[in-house]
Amino acid sequence: MKIEILCTGDEILTGKTVNTNHSYIAQRFTENALTVHWGTTVGDDRESLTTAFRQASERADAVIVNGGLGPTVDDLSQEVAAAAAGVELECNQEWLVRLKAYYEDRGRVMPENNIKQAMLPAGAEFIDNPIGTACGFAVDINNCRFFFTPGVPREMYRMINEQVVPRLLAMRGTKVVTRLKRFHTFGIGESRADRLLEDVINPDEQASGLLKLGFQTHYPQLETKLSAQAGNEEELDALLKPAEAELRKRLGNFILCEDDESLETLILNTLAESDSTLSCIEMTTGGAIASRLMKHEQSKQVLKQCRVSHQPEQLHESPTPESPPDISTQSAVALAEALNLSTGSTHALVVLTREDMQTKNPSIELCIGIADPSGTSQRQAILQGRTGWTRLGATELGLDCLRRHLLGFPVDEKIDFEQQ
Amino acid sequence: MKIEILCTGDEILTGKTVNTNHSYIAQRFTENALTVHWGTTVGDDRESLTTAFRQASERADAVIVNGGLGPTVDDLSQEVAAAAAGVELECNQEWLVRLKAYYEDRGRVMPENNIKQAMLPAGAEFIDNPIGTACGFAVDINNCRFFFTPGVPREMYRMINEQVVPRLLAMRGTKVVTRLKRFHTFGIGESRADRLLEDVINPDEQASGLLKLGFQTHYPQLETKLSAQAGNEEELDALLKPAEAELRKRLGNFILCEDDESLETLILNTLAESDSTLSCIEMTTGGAIASRLMKHEQSKQVLKQCRVSHQPEQLHESPTPESPPDISTQSAVALAEALNLSTGSTHALVVLTREDMQTKNPSIELCIGIADPSGTSQRQAILQGRTGWTRLGATELGLDCLRRHLLGFPVDEKIDFEQQ
Repeated sequence: MKIEILCTGDEILTGKTVNTNHSYIAQRFTENALTVHWGTTVGDDRESLTTAFRQASERADAVIVNGGLGPTVDDLSQEVAAAAAGVELECNQEWLVRLKAYYEDRGRVMPENNIKQAMLPAGAEFIDNPIGTACGFAVDINNCRFFFTPGVPREMYRMINEQVVPRLLAMRGTKVVTRLKRFHTFGIGESRADRLLEDVINPDEQASGLLKLGFQTHYPQLETKLSAQAGNEEELDALLKPAEAELRKRLGNFILCEDDESLETLILNTLAESDSTLSCIEMTTGGAIASRLMKHEQSKQVLKQCRVSHQPEQLHESPTPESPPDISTQSAVALAEALNLSTGSTHALVVLTREDMQTKNPSIELCIGIADPSGTSQRQAILQGRTGWTRLGATELGLDCLRRHLLGFPVDEKIDFEQQ
Repeated sequence: MKIEILCTGDEILTGKTVNTNHSYIAQRFTENALTVHWGTTVGDDRESLTTAFRQASERADAVIVNGGLGPTVDDLSQEVAAAAAGVELECNQEWLVRLKAYYEDRGRVMPENNIKQAMLPAGAEFIDNPIGTACGFAVDINNCRFFFTPGVPREMYRMINEQVVPRLLAMRGTKVVTRLKRFHTFGIGESRADRLLEDVINPDEQASGLLKLGFQTHYPQLETKLSAQAGNEEELDALLKPAEAELRKRLGNFILCEDDESLETLILNTLAESDSTLSCIEMTTGGAIASRLMKHEQSKQVLKQCRVSHQPEQLHESPTPESPPDISTQSAVALAEALNLSTGSTHALVVLTREDMQTKNPSIELCIGIADPSGTSQRQAILQGRTGWTRLGATELGLDCLRRHLLGFPVDEKIDFEQQ
């Protein structure tokens, strides 16, 4: 089955907005073993839309159109869809009632413009949008099924996952319950992960798309995805559970967290559960550890203080230019212990760094120290590469050592990104 | 003149990589009054590429193809281009010599694969790539001019700006010297900027594309762009200088910086020029001020220390739970003065915040204090909106107050994003 994605809108065409909607839709489809064959972007322009609908209908079995369902004059999707399908626009009374209620709930009267959002091509299949004013719909153009979806990302996400993917799977004749399991790791590169996991899924399952393994790199993290399709939840469990268990075994301590959890929330939750608190000292990572932790509400209770400086003499309690700490794991641990004393935190993470950016092969040396009432941990590593890259790695390694310390895992397992 | 952008590659088509190349190319074209009419994305697949080239050639006058110029078997652009143009592939001897030298310079022997990168359609116009192994080329397919560019972003950026844009402007018959002038502001929303500047450029100039005004929002900053085309540099000056002066006058103190300078580098350079140093205290902005400043090399000399916490009692020199500072501009100034004493910095910026996230209209109250040997400044503001949004605004307002203090501008000019 050939599927196309057709994104509409001047902002995307002219580059003012980066087209993340295409990549979102294509990723969800790929995870469901639905192959995206072509992508088109056109502006809010009747002639282009008409040509694009016709050409897509000649190439594909299904087309997802994104955008152009708004209430303004430059939103043309319904009108061009009706013309291309050779039918009139009709008012969907049910959606009109819902639209009026939507505005009433917000203490407003629906503007006249918005009636346009209830006008669908005659005979179109209605597709619900529970969180917005642009409903979706599906219609056939030249024997190709067109699905129209809103351009607002969160409305589109929900419609794609809940409404469009199941319809496409049904069109393809596959079973329609799907599930996506995600593992987030740090320290294993994509090519090693690929080799480590190559025989977890048997080739028949991978080819059939019933159980699929995929990777996505968000450096410094790697996301490993297992996607499954089956007739019901029990079959999904039967497919996924053994593969999940095998992945957990092979990726081991490198797994930071699963699904929607993040490394930061795992650390903050683990600390909060034992009424523990944290302070940090960061050198070259420049506030990145603080910034990542403090995005989360739990940090208001857990995080006492972060001290950030490039200058070692600023890392003491009272800055003492006479005797800056040397950059070593011993210093990092000593600073961590002193930091707990001065801020009243139970746990302290200290990341000292020495950057060597002048040479042909720039690098950062990291000396990490952790202290809590149960003891201390330390880790040394050298990361190579350009500054932005190594600082990202340094931030991640600091947080990862804290996670390993908290969970009782070894903090010194070598990662792929460090000098061996 | 109708122009299309055709991006190739499985990674983009399947959403694994977001297509930022399309938006980059489209933006550069739009700034040069070159209209992008259509966008296509196809995978590394001979049949799709052939169809895409044919259809684009029937719709457009010029097509920019991006990607598929690499040395591996899935890089098909040259081969499909030659077939579509009805010619053979020929080895470009000049490029082959350059390729071999490229590898020699790096102490390596060129792999056999890379010969492929010197194979161009017979009669194609060679387009130089001074920083990579994939040269560009141009060829006619069905009377439409196709420009082939590498997928590696920094190679593509340079080829688009230096080679493709001038050729397109020449095709269109316009004068070929172009310049882009950019102003970065904080505190003025796009719609107000649009009204403020609406008569800076006369409608004839705007319509002709000789002098064009445009906006791009990167919240909390707004980028205002002036783009000009002329026959030579003197004509460019004559077109741009009066408009630039008028923009500077109207946007006034809200201009953070121009062109490639950033707010952070302006602050760091201004401090460095007078051998001054800076310390900061951040509350809810969570390390974002530190993180932005410390990305820049100058911060190693200028920035003494940043202290980051959600907890007011942690903001004193020695954490004192008994008497946390109240959240007021007086406290912020007092903390700034104390911070200079304890860290030895000449300048201190303190951003205290009180978040109210429970109500229907969440907000942050900001109390900013600045101290240096010449005196103090203070600023209070309330920003409304969801947490991530207001924290971005708070970070920017803190840095902007410091800029205004350093340059002798009033720190209390109201911004569009605060409660009036």
